[in-house]
Amino acid sequence: MEAAQLVHVHRGKMLESVHKGHIAVVDSDGNLLYQAGNPQQMVYARSSMKPVQAIPLIETGAADFYHFDDADIALCCASHNAEKQHTNRVLSILSRIGLDVKDLQCGTHNPRWEEVYEELIREGKPVTALFNNCSGKHSGMLTTAQHMNETVDDYYKLDHPVQQRILEAISSLAEFPKEKIEIGIDGCGVPVHGMPLDKLAYCYARMANPTGLSNERTTAVKRIAQAMMNAPEMVGGTNRFCTDFMRVAQGRAFGKAGAEAVYCIGDIETGIGIAIKVEDGNGRGTEPVAVEVLKQLNLLTDEQLEQLKGYHYPQLKNCRQETIGQLSPVFQLESAKKHIQ
Amino acid sequence: MEAAQLVHVHRGKMLESVHKGHIAVVDSDGNLLYQAGNPQQMVYARSSMKPVQAIPLIETGAADFYHFDDADIALCCASHNAEKQHTNRVLSILSRIGLDVKDLQCGTHNPRWEEVYEELIREGKPVTALFNNCSGKHSGMLTTAQHMNETVDDYYKLDHPVQQRILEAISSLAEFPKEKIEIGIDGCGVPVHGMPLDKLAYCYARMANPTGLSNERTTAVKRIAQAMMNAPEMVGGTNRFCTDFMRVAQGRAFGKAGAEAVYCIGDIETGIGIAIKVEDGNGRGTEPVAVEVLKQLNLLTDEQLEQLKGYHYPQLKNCRQETIGQLSPVFQLESAKKHIQ
Repeated sequence: MEAAQLVHVHRGKMLESVHKGHIAVVDSDGNLLYQAGNPQQMVYARSSMKPVQAIPLIETGAADFYHFDDADIALCCASHNAEKQHTNRVLSILSRIGLDVKDLQCGTHNPRWEEVYEELIREGKPVTALFNNCSGKHSGMLTTAQHMNETVDDYYKLDHPVQQRILEAISSLAEFPKEKIEIGIDGCGVPVHGMPLDKLAYCYARMANPTGLSNERTTAVKRIAQAMMNAPEMVGGTNRFCTDFMRVAQGRAFGKAGAEAVYCIGDIETGIGIAIKVEDGNGRGTEPVAVEVLKQLNLLTDEQLEQLKGYHYPQLKNCRQETIGQLSPVFQLESAKKHIQ
Repeated sequence: MEAAQLVHVHRGKMLESVHKGHIAVVDSDGNLLYQAGNPQQMVYARSSMKPVQAIPLIETGAADFYHFDDADIALCCASHNAEKQHTNRVLSILSRIGLDVKDLQCGTHNPRWEEVYEELIREGKPVTALFNNCSGKHSGMLTTAQHMNETVDDYYKLDHPVQQRILEAISSLAEFPKEKIEIGIDGCGVPVHGMPLDKLAYCYARMANPTGLSNERTTAVKRIAQAMMNAPEMVGGTNRFCTDFMRVAQGRAFGKAGAEAVYCIGDIETGIGIAIKVEDGNGRGTEPVAVEVLKQLNLLTDEQLEQLKGYHYPQLKNCRQETIGQLSPVFQLESAKKHIQ
């Protein structure tokens, strides 16, 4: 199935660009409920997998041993701005586990939060791995490795127990065989996991409504989802969709973006999982789609939709701060009653 | 006609993202020679129109009056990095015409060249319109306005003679009626021009081989194209495709990128014009397509293609500087013998 038109980008009255892609809406029994484009499209989950990647952090007992609160767990699921609230907490986690910023193997990129970047430059300080948007996830991986008395210098490699536990958890939650999961390397050096879009949606459905999971797994996924919803500022940060969406959803849903234009949502109230992939990989397309899916599924009130309007219909501004265009979702979800197994 | 698959983005062995779009290859007699996707797709030329927008700068005599050399003219066609070589020259132009940075109406964005940005921060200096990638074009517009004794505070408005002369030049070169040109507002506040992709390619074909143009227009477009090819470092800057492509092409072709993933090339030797639009607006898709079109049309030697390999098949690196993926062009141009009028 071809990608569906998802978002139109208008400049003035003329259509300037188009984002196409795929959507799968799945319930926790593994039924594909709605779709657009190809709901079985193979996708790398990228950072949308972070909440699932946090499962071993809970299940090994590492989170409890090192006194992780909701904000700590949420930060392990984050692609954060590197605001002080994020970097201070990463430092706190590293300190608790007896490690240091130099143990983070995620590599470096400039901090997303411009004030932090400018402060580093003004003070002549280096951009370290601390400021990488994935430093929370890497701290979480190190926490598990420390707790399990495993080596900490190679935790990012696929054959390390940290990554093998994660692979096991993903395969089990998705009910998708490990050997079929396509492995690539993420922007931060750890394995990324390729699977059909509906399987990714199914992971989120089962985190939202842990059906058929062991008691231990049920506790773990509930704790992770609750942590994200209780500390949404940790998952992204100021002016970030993940954070603002979870604030507006007020405990009914959790969501996480992934690079190359992936977005996933789990809705606690209905047990529905949503996975979105904009095929061109441009993240600007995912937010209008995510809000529109929530609207079409009646998962948010009109008031909540109004609060998310800036993400639903983003305005394009130019360097003179004039509004010169707009993004608009243009798809209609199709019903699709079938089991995804 | 639907957009064609143009570029595949692989991470490891798996296809992660796809860029679709449209290509038109036109000769200077107005024949559509080759196509992919929809060669009549309506597109905003964005900054790809800058070389055409420079025509009145030459034809009014403003460039000669203010002693513009090739580098000055090339800078008026640029989306520059805001390296010192660019900003110093903008200051020189403004000084020659008796105006100042505050007269640039392009608005501000952070300088593209990171060293310049960091220097501004370290020295506590403000980001002004000087550093806008369009400040060269705006200096050129101001130059024409000054030379013609026109107002300089509203040169960016559609009804100002500066913009009306530009509109006239575009319409005439494209042989596309003014009233059919779709007007939007660019990132820097001036009008942008929407027209079918093949008309945009035709503009470049006629600049490459000025067929059926007045002597005055012929002189102007030849001077602009030569200026870009003689001073390619002004058109983009260090590590920029426009600059590196024109260096490698060694005077046989000129090219200019436009925002939202437009790219146009004029080939002097054959009089061919090429216009590319990646439909999703992601600029990373245009460079592999541009080089691949040049390859399929046999406009570059194997040695030249080898020099442009990094743009033809861009490697994706992660924050650890590991190569984790690659972009590859995947289209085949189709023959299309028909007149575009």
